[in-house]
Amino acid sequence: MKNIILIGSGNVATHLGIALYKKGHKITQVYSRNIKNAKKLATKLNSKYSNKLTMLEQNADLVIVSIKDDAIAEVLSNIKCKSIAHTSGSIDLSVFKNQFSNFGVLYPLQTFNKDIELNFTDIPFCIEANTKEFEDELIEIASSLSNNVVKMNSEQRKQLHIAAVFACNFTNHMFSISNNILSKENIDFKILLPLIKKTIAKLDSNKPNDVQTGPAARKDLKVINNHLNLIQQKEIKDLYNAISNNIIKFHE
Amino acid sequence: MKNIILIGSGNVATHLGIALYKKGHKITQVYSRNIKNAKKLATKLNSKYSNKLTMLEQNADLVIVSIKDDAIAEVLSNIKCKSIAHTSGSIDLSVFKNQFSNFGVLYPLQTFNKDIELNFTDIPFCIEANTKEFEDELIEIASSLSNNVVKMNSEQRKQLHIAAVFACNFTNHMFSISNNILSKENIDFKILLPLIKKTIAKLDSNKPNDVQTGPAARKDLKVINNHLNLIQQKEIKDLYNAISNNIIKFHE
Repeated sequence: MKNIILIGSGNVATHLGIALYKKGHKITQVYSRNIKNAKKLATKLNSKYSNKLTMLEQNADLVIVSIKDDAIAEVLSNIKCKSIAHTSGSIDLSVFKNQFSNFGVLYPLQTFNKDIELNFTDIPFCIEANTKEFEDELIEIASSLSNNVVKMNSEQRKQLHIAAVFACNFTNHMFSISNNILSKENIDFKILLPLIKKTIAKLDSNKPNDVQTGPAARKDLKVINNHLNLIQQKEIKDLYNAISNNIIKFHE
Repeated sequence: MKNIILIGSGNVATHLGIALYKKGHKITQVYSRNIKNAKKLATKLNSKYSNKLTMLEQNADLVIVSIKDDAIAEVLSNIKCKSIAHTSGSIDLSVFKNQFSNFGVLYPLQTFNKDIELNFTDIPFCIEANTKEFEDELIEIASSLSNNVVKMNSEQRKQLHIAAVFACNFTNHMFSISNNILSKENIDFKILLPLIKKTIAKLDSNKPNDVQTGPAARKDLKVINNHLNLIQQKEIKDLYNAISNNIIKFHE
């Protein structure tokens, strides 16, 4: 079990902090720019807190930086410690600029909402580090939370993050658009859940491109044009058109 | 239990035919333009088959037309029978042009792949008909297959179909794009499944727009631009851009 300092108080920091704490790690300190947020998370983790990077304790085994990508480089330049890891999918290992003895990445591939509880057991953790020893240490910490820990270099991790944006964020936005369309007709979005669940269930034993269905996959231009005529909002019409064209091209 | 003629031998016709047959309805005849396909499905349903609409038997309780939307109007003009229903999400009830005593719609809201078995129990069936009596009859047939039967007019059904295209077809295409991105990095698509399943699980108790995450939802333009630089294919870059912009606008 490790003594860990947590930099950040957003969705990832909150879930990761709680999970580490529950597994017996000690969160010694929580840092957030916003002292109220630092305090709020620290209370859950039974830890100290601060909004000054210069006040970080020096005795932690590991500093985990779990903040907005934009802010990582600057925050790092103000941290002094021996071992440090960030949790970002998009930020290269080179961001640490060799200013630490041990540096690495501990990227949990999951979607985090502050108020929705999360079980880390199946969540893939992607690990990268500057040395074999520190890599092993990060693997050990990740394995205390999850059964699904993989090594991955920065380039792979960045592409995985993009893939995850398509598979999760963009997918959820497709649901939001559906929900808006249905609201206007007083139809409950829940009517789509069996269809959505079947769409996902297929992925257990099929590649998505092998199970594509719908008007675009069968080049049913009449249905596509009917739909375009029936969609009222211009941006949604444009998206329908762009995605349909991409499906048609993809399946030619 | 009904005597049913099935027009069509595609994905929907196949699954619906098998489900009706298993529930004890008698499929008296299968029609397909392509006699081989008609025979193949008829064999599974223990029924006769034909590729001539003029050869349809006259003693069926119901003719179910389950073919490509483009072909429905023309096929209908060549059918003589008392009671008929189509299974399309997009085609208006008016397609029947009052040339039948009883006409209606029996639209199963699901994604059909010929080779993937389907349990209809939870599948929503959307029912519309020209008379209350025939509506009741279609509800009865649908209820023999599913616990989720709803009445819905043509306008609602069309919008539902569009919503389903976004929630199912477009979602699956997002997975295909992810899969392509990952293949290039030798990463198995399965690494995304826990994330995808979590994204879906949230919908049981949340509206999708309330649980949107990702760089666009938090307006993280640095990550978005990094991703755009890392995406090699122009069409995929354009889609990433279009969907991200729509998310940003949606959550402003």
